Amino acid sequence: MPLWYDEVHEDKLRFGLRCERTLFMGESAFQKIAVIETTAFGRALLLDEMWMTSEADEYIYHELIAHTALAVAPSIQRVLIIGGGDGGTAREVLSHPEVARVDLVEIDAMVVAASREHLPTIGSAWDDPRLHVTIGDGIAYVREAAAPPYDVVIVDGSDPVGPAVGLFDASFYAGCKRLLGPRGVFITQSESPIVNKNVHLAMIRTIAATFGEAHPLYATVPLYPSGSWSWTWASNGGSVDRFAVVAERAARIEARSKYWTREMQRATFALPNHIKMALGR
Amino acid sequence: MPLWYDEVHEDKLRFGLRCERTLFMGESAFQKIAVIETTAFGRALLLDEMWMTSEADEYIYHELIAHTALAVAPSIQRVLIIGGGDGGTAREVLSHPEVARVDLVEIDAMVVAASREHLPTIGSAWDDPRLHVTIGDGIAYVREAAAPPYDVVIVDGSDPVGPAVGLFDASFYAGCKRLLGPRGVFITQSESPIVNKNVHLAMIRTIAATFGEAHPLYATVPLYPSGSWSWTWASNGGSVDRFAVVAERAARIEARSKYWTREMQRATFALPNHIKMALGR
Repeated sequence: MPLWYDEVHEDKLRFGLRCERTLFMGESAFQKIAVIETTAFGRALLLDEMWMTSEADEYIYHELIAHTALAVAPSIQRVLIIGGGDGGTAREVLSHPEVARVDLVEIDAMVVAASREHLPTIGSAWDDPRLHVTIGDGIAYVREAAAPPYDVVIVDGSDPVGPAVGLFDASFYAGCKRLLGPRGVFITQSESPIVNKNVHLAMIRTIAATFGEAHPLYATVPLYPSGSWSWTWASNGGSVDRFAVVAERAARIEARSKYWTREMQRATFALPNHIKMALGR
Repeated sequence: MPLWYDEVHEDKLRFGLRCERTLFMGESAFQKIAVIETTAFGRALLLDEMWMTSEADEYIYHELIAHTALAVAPSIQRVLIIGGGDGGTAREVLSHPEVARVDLVEIDAMVVAASREHLPTIGSAWDDPRLHVTIGDGIAYVREAAAPPYDVVIVDGSDPVGPAVGLFDASFYAGCKRLLGPRGVFITQSESPIVNKNVHLAMIRTIAATFGEAHPLYATVPLYPSGSWSWTWASNGGSVDRFAVVAERAARIEARSKYWTREMQRATFALPNHIKMALGR
Protein backbone atom coordinates (compact mmCIF):
# COMPACT_ATOMS: atom_id res chain seq x y z
CA MET A 1 0.00 0.00 0.00
CA PRO A 2 1.62 3.27 -1.04
CA LEU A 3 1.92 5.87 1.72
CA TRP A 4 1.37 9.53 0.90
CA TYR A 5 1.72 12.71 2.85
CA ASP A 6 -0.29 15.77 1.76
CA GLU A 7 0.05 19.30 3.11
CA VAL A 8 -3.49 20.66 3.18
CA HIS A 9 -3.75 24.42 2.76
CA GLU A 10 -6.86 26.03 4.29
CA ASP A 11 -8.85 22.84 3.74
CA LYS A 12 -9.12 23.54 0.01
CA LEU A 13 -5.83 22.80 -1.76
CA ARG A 14 -3.20 20.13 -1.12
CA PHE A 15 0.20 18.99 -2.35
CA GLY A 16 1.27 15.45 -1.68
CA LEU A 17 4.34 13.32 -2.08
CA ARG A 18 4.59 9.57 -1.93
CA CYS A 19 6.70 8.50 1.04
CA GLU A 20 9.19 5.67 1.25
CA ARG A 21 9.89 5.87 4.97
CA THR A 22 9.89 8.15 7.97
CA LEU A 23 13.35 9.13 9.16
CA PHE A 24 12.36 11.28 12.12
CA MET A 25 9.22 12.31 13.96
CA GLY A 26 9.26 14.46 17.06
CA GLU A 27 7.48 17.21 18.87
CA SER A 28 9.40 20.10 20.37
CA ALA A 29 8.14 22.88 22.62
CA PHE A 30 7.31 24.78 19.44
CA GLN A 31 6.06 22.41 16.76
CA LYS A 32 5.79 18.95 15.26
CA ILE A 33 8.84 17.98 13.22
CA ALA A 34 9.19 15.22 10.66
CA VAL A 35 11.80 14.16 8.11
CA ILE A 36 10.45 11.85 5.44
CA GLU A 37 12.04 10.07 2.50
CA THR A 38 9.87 10.81 -0.53
CA THR A 39 9.88 9.01 -3.87
CA ALA A 40 9.86 12.15 -6.03
CA PHE A 41 11.90 14.73 -4.08
CA GLY A 42 14.29 12.83 -1.82
CA ARG A 43 14.31 13.65 1.87
CA ALA A 44 11.91 16.35 3.01
CA LEU A 45 11.36 18.33 6.22
CA LEU A 46 7.87 19.02 7.60
CA LEU A 47 7.04 21.47 10.41
CA ASP A 48 3.52 21.33 11.84
CA GLU A 49 2.52 19.16 8.85
CA MET A 50 3.67 21.74 6.30
CA TRP A 51 6.39 20.98 3.74
CA MET A 52 9.43 23.14 4.48
CA THR A 53 12.14 21.90 2.15
CA SER A 54 13.25 18.86 0.17
CA GLU A 55 16.54 17.66 -1.25
CA ALA A 56 15.25 17.96 -4.81
CA ASP A 57 13.87 21.50 -4.78
CA GLU A 58 15.69 23.24 -1.92
CA TYR A 59 18.20 24.88 -4.26
CA ILE A 60 15.57 27.29 -5.58
CA TYR A 61 14.60 28.67 -2.18
CA HIS A 62 18.07 28.71 -0.64
CA GLU A 63 19.93 30.13 -3.64
CA LEU A 64 17.41 32.94 -4.01
CA ILE A 65 17.17 33.96 -0.36
CA ALA A 66 20.97 34.00 -0.02
CA HIS A 67 22.36 35.23 -3.33
CA THR A 68 19.73 37.82 -4.23
CA ALA A 69 21.08 39.68 -1.18
CA LEU A 70 24.73 38.60 -1.24
CA ALA A 71 25.32 39.18 -4.96
CA VAL A 72 24.68 42.91 -4.55
CA ALA A 73 25.29 43.96 -0.92
CA PRO A 74 28.28 46.36 -0.76
CA SER A 75 29.80 44.32 2.08
CA ILE A 76 28.99 40.72 3.05
CA GLN A 77 31.37 40.17 5.96
CA ARG A 78 28.74 39.81 8.68
CA VAL A 79 25.49 38.01 7.99
CA LEU A 80 22.54 37.31 10.30
CA ILE A 81 20.10 34.49 9.56
CA ILE A 82 16.86 34.37 11.57
CA GLY A 83 15.43 30.85 11.35
CA GLY A 84 17.05 28.69 8.71
CA GLY A 85 17.26 25.67 11.00
CA ASP A 86 17.65 23.24 8.08
CA GLY A 87 21.04 24.78 7.27
CA GLY A 88 20.45 25.39 3.55
CA THR A 89 20.60 29.16 3.68
CA ALA A 90 23.77 29.10 5.81
CA ARG A 91 25.38 26.74 3.28
CA GLU A 92 24.73 29.17 0.43
CA VAL A 93 25.84 32.21 2.46
CA LEU A 94 29.05 30.48 3.53
CA SER A 95 29.93 29.65 -0.08
CA HIS A 96 31.17 33.26 -0.30
CA PRO A 97 34.75 33.52 1.02
CA GLU A 98 34.25 37.22 1.94
CA VAL A 99 31.75 36.16 4.60
CA ALA A 100 33.65 36.30 7.88
CA ARG A 101 30.87 35.48 10.33
CA VAL A 102 27.31 34.15 10.15
CA ASP A 103 25.04 34.33 13.20
CA LEU A 104 22.13 31.92 12.82
CA VAL A 105 19.35 32.30 15.40
CA GLU A 106 16.93 29.38 15.32
CA ILE A 107 14.24 28.99 17.96
CA ASP A 108 14.00 25.22 17.81
CA ALA A 109 16.99 23.05 18.70
CA MET A 110 15.12 19.97 17.51
CA VAL A 111 14.89 21.37 13.95
CA VAL A 112 18.66 21.84 13.87
CA ALA A 113 19.34 18.41 15.37
CA ALA A 114 16.93 16.59 13.03
CA SER A 115 18.28 18.48 9.99
CA ARG A 116 21.93 17.87 10.91
CA GLU A 117 21.30 14.18 11.27
CA HIS A 118 18.83 13.51 8.45
CA LEU A 119 19.35 16.28 5.86
CA PRO A 120 23.15 16.40 5.55
CA THR A 121 23.11 17.44 1.89
CA ILE A 122 21.00 20.50 2.71
CA GLY A 123 22.91 21.66 5.77
CA SER A 124 26.40 20.83 4.60
CA ALA A 125 28.10 23.78 6.32
CA TRP A 126 27.24 23.20 10.00
CA ASP A 127 30.90 22.65 10.86
CA ASP A 128 32.17 25.79 9.13
CA PRO A 129 34.02 27.76 11.86
CA ARG A 130 32.47 31.02 10.58
CA LEU A 131 28.97 29.78 11.52
CA HIS A 132 27.71 30.64 15.02
CA VAL A 133 24.40 28.99 15.90
CA THR A 134 22.28 30.43 18.71
CA ILE A 135 19.23 28.50 19.83
CA GLY A 136 16.82 31.24 20.82
CA ASP A 137 14.03 33.56 19.82
CA GLY A 138 14.92 35.52 16.70
CA ILE A 139 12.33 38.15 17.56
CA ALA A 140 13.97 38.87 20.93
CA TYR A 141 17.38 38.75 19.24
CA VAL A 142 16.62 41.50 16.75
CA ARG A 143 15.00 43.56 19.52
CA GLU A 144 17.79 43.22 22.08
CA ALA A 145 21.08 42.11 20.57
CA ALA A 146 24.01 44.49 21.02
CA ALA A 147 25.84 43.17 17.98
CA PRO A 148 27.98 45.29 15.64
CA PRO A 149 26.03 46.10 12.49
CA TYR A 150 25.31 43.29 10.05
CA ASP A 151 25.88 43.67 6.32
CA VAL A 152 23.01 41.32 5.45
CA VAL A 153 19.99 40.15 7.47
CA ILE A 154 18.10 37.12 6.14
CA VAL A 155 14.76 35.99 7.56
CA ASP A 156 14.30 32.33 6.69
CA GLY A 157 11.25 31.64 8.82
CA SER A 158 8.12 29.59 8.42
CA ASP A 159 4.53 30.71 7.86
CA PRO A 160 2.64 33.13 10.13
CA VAL A 161 1.30 30.39 12.39
CA GLY A 162 3.01 28.92 15.46
CA PRO A 163 6.41 30.27 16.55
CA ALA A 164 6.88 32.39 13.41
CA VAL A 165 3.88 34.74 13.85
CA GLY A 166 6.03 37.57 15.22
CA LEU A 167 8.26 37.50 12.11
CA PHE A 168 5.47 39.31 10.25
CA ASP A 169 5.17 42.36 12.57
CA ALA A 170 6.35 45.91 11.90
CA SER A 171 8.32 45.86 15.18
CA PHE A 172 10.25 42.82 13.97
CA TYR A 173 11.27 44.56 10.74
CA ALA A 174 12.29 47.63 12.76
CA GLY A 175 14.51 45.34 14.82
CA CYS A 176 16.12 43.93 11.67
CA LYS A 177 16.78 47.45 10.40
CA ARG A 178 18.33 48.40 13.75
CA LEU A 179 20.89 45.60 13.33
CA LEU A 180 21.80 46.54 9.76
CA GLY A 181 24.63 48.83 8.69
CA PRO A 182 23.79 51.97 6.67
CA ARG A 183 24.20 50.12 3.35
CA GLY A 184 22.95 46.79 4.62
CA VAL A 185 20.57 44.49 2.75
CA PHE A 186 17.54 42.71 4.17
CA ILE A 187 15.65 39.77 2.68
CA THR A 188 12.80 37.63 3.97
CA GLN A 189 10.59 34.90 2.60
CA SER A 190 7.20 36.53 1.97
CA GLU A 191 4.61 33.82 1.25
CA SER A 192 2.60 32.94 -1.87
CA PRO A 193 1.37 35.80 -4.05
CA ILE A 194 -1.55 33.57 -5.03
CA VAL A 195 -2.91 31.76 -1.97
CA ASN A 196 -1.49 34.17 0.65
CA LYS A 197 -1.83 37.32 -1.44
CA ASN A 198 -3.09 39.54 1.40
CA VAL A 199 -0.30 38.52 3.77
CA HIS A 200 2.20 38.94 0.94
CA LEU A 201 1.05 42.48 0.10
CA ALA A 202 0.88 43.48 3.77
CA MET A 203 4.48 42.32 4.27
CA ILE A 204 5.69 44.36 1.29
CA ARG A 205 3.93 47.49 2.55
CA THR A 206 5.23 47.07 6.11
CA ILE A 207 8.79 46.42 4.96
CA ALA A 208 8.62 49.46 2.63
CA ALA A 209 7.43 51.63 5.53
CA THR A 210 10.34 50.38 7.65
CA PHE A 211 13.22 50.33 5.18
CA GLY A 212 12.17 52.99 2.65
CA GLU A 213 11.77 50.36 -0.10
CA ALA A 214 10.55 46.79 -0.55
CA HIS A 215 10.96 44.73 -3.70
CA PRO A 216 9.31 41.32 -3.98
CA LEU A 217 10.88 38.61 -6.09
CA TYR A 218 9.23 35.43 -7.34
CA ALA A 219 9.97 31.84 -8.25
CA THR A 220 8.32 28.44 -8.27
CA VAL A 221 8.88 26.32 -5.16
CA PRO A 222 7.13 23.02 -5.97
CA LEU A 223 6.73 22.10 -2.29
CA TYR A 224 4.77 25.21 -1.22
CA PRO A 225 1.04 25.90 -1.53
CA SER A 226 0.23 27.01 -5.12
CA GLY A 227 3.89 26.51 -6.12
CA SER A 228 4.26 30.25 -6.49
CA TRP A 229 6.51 31.74 -3.84
CA SER A 230 8.04 35.09 -2.97
CA TRP A 231 10.80 36.79 -1.04
CA THR A 232 11.02 40.48 -0.32
CA TRP A 233 14.27 42.46 -0.60
CA ALA A 234 15.09 45.88 0.87
CA SER A 235 18.23 47.88 1.49
CA ASN A 236 18.65 50.28 4.37
CA GLY A 237 16.99 53.50 3.21
CA GLY A 238 17.10 52.37 -0.43
CA SER A 239 20.90 52.76 -0.47
CA VAL A 240 21.73 49.72 -2.63
CA ASP A 241 20.91 48.96 -6.30
CA ARG A 242 19.46 45.45 -6.34
CA PHE A 243 20.58 44.94 -9.95
CA ALA A 244 24.22 46.00 -9.45
CA VAL A 245 25.71 42.53 -9.17
CA VAL A 246 29.34 42.25 -7.95
CA ALA A 247 30.95 40.49 -10.93
CA GLU A 248 33.36 38.19 -9.14
CA ARG A 249 30.71 37.05 -6.66
CA ALA A 250 28.30 36.35 -9.51
CA ALA A 251 30.86 34.25 -11.34
CA ARG A 252 31.48 32.28 -8.17
CA ILE A 253 27.78 31.67 -7.58
CA GLU A 254 27.15 30.63 -11.18
CA ALA A 255 29.99 28.10 -10.99
CA ARG A 256 27.97 26.07 -8.46
CA SER A 257 24.33 27.23 -8.57
CA LYS A 258 21.42 25.36 -10.11
CA TYR A 259 18.99 28.29 -10.24
CA TRP A 260 20.59 31.71 -9.66
CA THR A 261 22.31 33.51 -12.52
CA ARG A 262 23.18 37.19 -13.14
CA GLU A 263 20.20 37.36 -15.46
CA MET A 264 17.93 35.78 -12.85
CA GLN A 265 18.88 38.50 -10.35
CA ARG A 266 16.90 40.93 -12.51
CA ALA A 267 14.26 38.51 -13.80
CA THR A 268 13.01 37.34 -10.40
CA PHE A 269 12.10 40.93 -9.48
CA ALA A 270 9.64 41.28 -12.40
CA LEU A 271 6.18 41.86 -10.94
CA PRO A 272 3.11 40.02 -12.23
CA ASN A 273 0.72 42.74 -13.36
CA HIS A 274 -1.85 42.03 -10.63
CA ILE A 275 0.83 42.61 -7.97
CA LYS A 276 2.13 45.72 -9.74
CA MET A 277 -1.39 47.14 -9.77
CA ALA A 278 -2.10 46.18 -6.15
CA LEU A 279 1.08 48.00 -5.09
CA GLY A 280 0.38 50.99 -7.35
CA ARG A 281 3.76 50.68 -9.13
CA MET B 1 -17.59 14.63 3.89
CA PRO B 2 -15.31 16.87 1.83
CA LEU B 3 -14.62 15.67 -1.71
CA TRP B 4 -11.19 16.11 -3.21
CA TYR B 5 -9.73 15.48 -6.60
CA ASP B 6 -5.97 14.88 -6.94
CA GLU B 7 -3.97 14.67 -10.13
CA VAL B 8 -1.36 12.00 -9.47
CA HIS B 9 1.87 12.43 -11.43
CA GLU B 10 3.86 9.24 -12.05
CA ASP B 11 2.51 7.70 -8.84
CA LYS B 12 4.82 9.90 -6.73
CA LEU B 13 3.52 13.46 -6.57
CA ARG B 14 -0.02 14.84 -6.48
CA PHE B 15 -1.88 18.14 -6.48
CA GLY B 16 -5.42 18.20 -5.17
CA LEU B 17 -8.29 20.65 -4.94
CA ARG B 18 -11.37 20.37 -2.81
CA CYS B 19 -14.44 20.06 -5.00
CA GLU B 20 -17.87 21.58 -4.48
CA ARG B 21 -19.64 19.84 -7.32
CA THR B 22 -19.19 18.19 -10.67
CA LEU B 23 -20.52 20.25 -13.57
CA PHE B 24 -19.70 17.85 -16.40
CA MET B 25 -18.31 14.36 -16.87
CA GLY B 26 -18.02 12.71 -20.22
CA GLU B 27 -15.87 10.45 -22.32
CA SER B 28 -15.16 11.30 -25.94
CA ALA B 29 -13.42 9.19 -28.57
CA PHE B 30 -10.17 10.71 -27.33
CA GLN B 31 -10.26 11.17 -23.57
CA LYS B 32 -12.17 11.54 -20.32
CA ILE B 33 -13.40 15.08 -19.74
CA ALA B 34 -14.58 16.68 -16.50
CA VAL B 35 -15.45 20.18 -15.34
CA ILE B 36 -15.45 20.57 -11.57
CA GLU B 37 -16.28 23.47 -9.27
CA THR B 38 -13.39 23.72 -6.81
CA THR B 39 -13.31 25.64 -3.51
CA ALA B 40 -9.92 27.27 -4.06
CA PHE B 41 -9.69 27.91 -7.80
CA GLY B 42 -13.23 28.16 -9.14
CA ARG B 43 -14.23 25.97 -12.05
CA ALA B 44 -11.56 23.64 -13.44
CA LEU B 45 -11.20 21.42 -16.50
CA LEU B 46 -9.69 17.94 -16.31
CA LEU B 47 -8.66 15.79 -19.28
CA ASP B 48 -7.80 12.14 -18.58
CA GLU B 49 -7.73 13.00 -14.86
CA MET B 50 -5.12 15.74 -15.33
CA TRP B 51 -5.79 19.37 -14.37
CA MET B 52 -5.83 21.47 -17.53
CA THR B 53 -6.98 24.93 -16.42
CA SER B 54 -8.96 26.71 -13.73
CA GLU B 55 -10.76 30.03 -13.51
CA ALA B 56 -8.36 31.27 -10.82
CA ASP B 57 -5.00 30.53 -12.42
CA GLU B 58 -5.73 30.34 -16.17
CA TYR B 59 -4.56 33.90 -16.78
CA ILE B 60 -0.92 32.93 -16.26
CA TYR B 61 -0.90 30.18 -18.89
CA HIS B 62 -3.13 31.94 -21.44
CA GLU B 63 -1.54 35.37 -21.21
CA LEU B 64 1.95 33.94 -21.60
CA ILE B 65 1.24 31.58 -24.50
CA ALA B 66 -0.59 34.33 -26.41
CA HIS B 67 1.19 37.58 -25.64
CA THR B 68 4.78 36.36 -25.52
CA ALA B 69 4.27 35.70 -29.23
CA LEU B 70 1.83 38.47 -30.13
CA ALA B 71 3.65 41.30 -28.33
CA VAL B 72 6.65 40.92 -30.63
CA ALA B 73 5.60 39.25 -33.92
CA PRO B 74 6.04 41.71 -36.83
CA SER B 75 2.53 40.94 -38.06
CA ILE B 76 -0.33 39.35 -36.10
CA GLN B 77 -3.10 39.32 -38.68
CA ARG B 78 -3.41 35.56 -39.08
CA VAL B 79 -3.03 33.26 -36.09
CA LEU B 80 -3.28 29.46 -35.87
CA ILE B 81 -4.03 27.75 -32.56
CA ILE B 82 -3.56 23.98 -32.37
CA GLY B 83 -5.55 22.67 -29.40
CA GLY B 84 -6.79 25.34 -27.05
CA GLY B 85 -10.25 23.79 -26.76
CA ASP B 86 -11.03 25.66 -23.53
CA GLY B 87 -11.00 28.94 -25.46
CA GLY B 88 -8.64 30.86 -23.14
CA THR B 89 -5.82 31.25 -25.65
CA ALA B 90 -8.23 32.40 -28.38
CA ARG B 91 -9.68 34.99 -25.96
CA GLU B 92 -6.24 36.50 -25.35
CA VAL B 93 -5.27 36.39 -29.05
CA LEU B 94 -8.53 38.08 -30.07
CA SER B 95 -7.98 40.91 -27.59
CA HIS B 96 -5.64 42.36 -30.24
CA PRO B 97 -7.62 44.35 -32.82
CA GLU B 98 -4.93 43.76 -35.50
CA VAL B 99 -5.80 40.06 -35.47
CA ALA B 100 -8.00 39.52 -38.53
CA ARG B 101 -8.45 35.75 -38.40
CA VAL B 102 -7.80 32.96 -35.90
CA ASP B 103 -8.00 29.33 -36.98
CA LEU B 104 -8.39 27.06 -33.97
CA VAL B 105 -7.96 23.34 -34.65
CA GLU B 106 -9.10 21.21 -31.73
CA ILE B 107 -9.36 17.44 -32.02
CA ASP B 108 -12.11 16.97 -29.46
CA ALA B 109 -15.54 18.55 -30.01
CA MET B 110 -16.58 17.54 -26.50
CA VAL B 111 -13.82 19.68 -24.96
CA VAL B 112 -15.11 22.71 -26.85
CA ALA B 113 -18.74 21.98 -25.99
CA ALA B 114 -18.05 21.38 -22.29
CA SER B 115 -15.86 24.49 -22.09
CA ARG B 116 -18.37 26.70 -23.90
CA GLU B 117 -21.09 25.64 -21.55
CA HIS B 118 -19.28 25.39 -18.24
CA LEU B 119 -16.22 27.67 -18.50
CA PRO B 120 -17.70 30.83 -20.03
CA THR B 121 -15.26 33.18 -18.29
CA ILE B 122 -12.29 31.31 -19.80
CA GLY B 123 -13.60 31.00 -23.35
CA SER B 124 -15.30 34.38 -23.59
CA ALA B 125 -14.53 34.92 -27.29
CA TRP B 126 -16.20 31.91 -28.94
CA ASP B 127 -18.66 34.18 -30.75
CA ASP B 128 -16.03 36.55 -32.15
CA PRO B 129 -16.54 36.48 -35.96
CA ARG B 130 -12.76 36.40 -36.47
CA LEU B 131 -12.56 32.98 -34.79
CA HIS B 132 -12.87 29.91 -37.04
CA VAL B 133 -13.04 26.63 -35.15
CA THR B 134 -12.19 23.37 -36.93
CA ILE B 135 -12.81 20.11 -35.13
CA GLY B 136 -10.04 17.91 -36.40
CA ASP B 137 -6.54 16.58 -36.00
CA GLY B 138 -4.04 19.40 -35.56
CA ILE B 139 -1.20 17.12 -36.62
CA ALA B 140 -2.88 16.38 -39.97
CA TYR B 141 -3.77 20.08 -40.31
CA VAL B 142 -0.18 21.30 -40.06
CA ARG B 143 0.94 18.54 -42.43
CA GLU B 144 -1.72 19.07 -45.11
CA ALA B 145 -3.41 22.46 -44.87
CA ALA B 146 -3.08 24.68 -47.94
CA ALA B 147 -3.59 27.87 -45.95
CA PRO B 148 -1.86 31.18 -46.68
CA PRO B 149 1.04 31.71 -44.28
CA TYR B 150 0.24 32.39 -40.62
CA ASP B 151 1.92 35.18 -38.70
CA VAL B 152 1.77 33.27 -35.42
CA VAL B 153 1.34 29.54 -34.68
CA ILE B 154 0.41 28.59 -31.10
CA VAL B 155 0.41 24.99 -29.86
CA ASP B 156 -1.83 24.81 -26.81
CA GLY B 157 -1.96 21.05 -26.43
CA SER B 158 -1.94 18.66 -23.52
CA ASP B 159 0.79 16.35 -22.28
CA PRO B 160 2.54 13.71 -24.43
CA VAL B 161 0.03 11.00 -23.62
CA GLY B 162 -3.24 10.26 -25.43
CA PRO B 163 -4.20 12.35 -28.46
CA ALA B 164 -1.40 14.89 -27.94
CA VAL B 165 1.59 12.53 -28.39
CA GLY B 166 2.21 13.63 -31.97
CA LEU B 167 2.51 17.28 -30.90
CA PHE B 168 5.99 16.46 -29.60
CA ASP B 169 7.47 15.09 -32.87
CA ALA B 170 9.98 16.78 -35.15
CA SER B 171 7.63 16.26 -38.10
CA PHE B 172 4.92 18.21 -36.29
CA TYR B 173 7.24 21.17 -35.72
CA ALA B 174 8.28 21.01 -39.37
CA GLY B 175 4.59 21.24 -40.26
CA CYS B 176 4.16 24.30 -38.05
CA LYS B 177 7.17 25.95 -39.71
CA ARG B 178 5.73 25.18 -43.14
CA LEU B 179 2.58 27.14 -42.26
CA LEU B 180 4.47 30.15 -40.94
CA GLY B 181 5.44 33.27 -42.90
CA PRO B 182 9.16 34.17 -43.19
CA ARG B 183 9.00 36.37 -40.06
CA GLY B 184 6.40 34.29 -38.26
CA VAL B 185 6.52 33.36 -34.57
CA PHE B 186 5.87 29.93 -33.05
CA ILE B 187 5.11 29.09 -29.42
CA THR B 188 4.16 25.86 -27.68
CA GLN B 189 3.65 24.72 -24.13
CA SER B 190 6.71 22.64 -23.26
CA GLU B 191 6.08 20.80 -19.96
CA SER B 192 7.66 21.10 -16.51
CA PRO B 193 11.41 21.78 -16.34
CA ILE B 194 11.41 19.90 -13.03
CA VAL B 195 9.27 16.75 -13.30
CA ASN B 196 9.36 16.48 -17.12
CA LYS B 197 12.89 17.82 -17.57
CA ASN B 198 13.93 15.30 -20.24
CA VAL B 199 10.83 15.90 -22.37
CA HIS B 200 11.28 19.65 -21.89
CA LEU B 201 14.92 19.61 -23.03
CA ALA B 202 14.15 17.31 -25.96
CA MET B 203 11.41 19.68 -27.14
CA ILE B 204 13.77 22.68 -27.01
CA ARG B 205 16.43 20.82 -28.99
CA THR B 206 13.96 19.59 -31.62
CA ILE B 207 12.36 23.02 -32.03
CA ALA B 208 15.82 24.62 -32.32
CA ALA B 209 16.76 22.12 -35.03
CA THR B 210 13.55 22.94 -36.93
CA PHE B 211 13.30 26.72 -36.54
CA GLY B 212 16.94 27.74 -36.10
CA GLU B 213 16.30 28.86 -32.51
CA ALA B 214 14.27 27.84 -29.46
CA HIS B 215 13.87 29.90 -26.31
CA PRO B 216 12.10 28.45 -23.29
CA LEU B 217 10.22 30.71 -20.92
CA TYR B 218 9.04 29.89 -17.41
CA ALA B 219 6.30 30.68 -14.91
CA THR B 220 4.41 29.06 -12.06
CA VAL B 221 1.15 27.35 -13.01
CA PRO B 222 -0.28 26.16 -9.66
CA LEU B 223 -2.42 23.48 -11.30
CA TYR B 224 0.39 21.61 -13.07
CA PRO B 225 2.76 18.96 -11.66
CA SER B 226 5.55 20.67 -9.68
CA GLY B 227 3.95 24.10 -10.32
CA SER B 228 6.87 25.00 -12.56
CA TRP B 229 5.83 25.24 -16.19
CA SER B 230 7.37 26.22 -19.52
CA TRP B 231 6.59 27.33 -23.03
CA THR B 232 9.06 27.43 -25.91
CA TRP B 233 9.26 30.32 -28.37
CA ALA B 234 10.88 30.38 -31.81
CA SER B 235 10.76 32.65 -34.83
CA ASN B 236 11.16 31.42 -38.37
CA GLY B 237 14.93 31.19 -38.89
CA GLY B 238 15.60 33.41 -35.89
CA SER B 239 14.21 36.43 -37.75
CA VAL B 240 12.42 38.12 -34.82
CA ASP B 241 13.81 39.68 -31.63
CA ARG B 242 11.76 38.23 -28.77
CA PHE B 243 12.45 41.29 -26.60
CA ALA B 244 11.41 43.92 -29.19
CA VAL B 245 7.92 44.55 -27.87
CA VAL B 246 5.53 46.58 -30.07
CA ALA B 247 4.75 49.51 -27.74
CA GLU B 248 1.08 50.03 -28.53
CA ARG B 249 0.30 46.32 -28.28
CA ALA B 250 2.10 46.15 -24.93
CA ALA B 251 0.13 49.07 -23.56
CA ARG B 252 -3.09 47.39 -24.65
CA ILE B 253 -2.14 44.08 -23.05
CA GLU B 254 -1.09 45.73 -19.78
CA ALA B 255 -4.42 47.55 -19.57
CA ARG B 256 -6.19 44.21 -19.06
CA SER B 257 -3.61 41.57 -18.13
CA LYS B 258 -3.06 40.08 -14.70
CA TYR B 259 0.36 38.57 -15.38
CA TRP B 260 2.04 39.78 -18.58
CA THR B 261 3.94 43.07 -18.61
CA ARG B 262 6.67 44.50 -20.87
CA GLU B 263 9.17 43.64 -18.14
CA MET B 264 7.79 40.10 -17.87
CA GLN B 265 8.39 39.57 -21.61
CA ARG B 266 12.12 39.62 -20.82
CA ALA B 267 12.00 38.12 -17.34
CA THR B 268 10.15 34.92 -18.27
CA PHE B 269 12.97 34.00 -20.69
CA ALA B 270 15.62 33.93 -17.95
CA LEU B 271 16.99 30.39 -17.73
CA PRO B 272 17.50 28.62 -14.40
CA ASN B 273 21.19 27.75 -14.30
CA HIS B 274 20.60 23.97 -14.50
CA ILE B 275 18.67 24.46 -17.78
CA LYS B 276 21.27 26.89 -19.12
CA MET B 277 23.97 24.31 -18.44
CA ALA B 278 21.95 21.42 -19.88
CA LEU B 279 21.48 23.41 -23.10
CA GLY B 280 25.12 24.57 -23.18
CA ARG B 281 24.12 28.25 -23.34
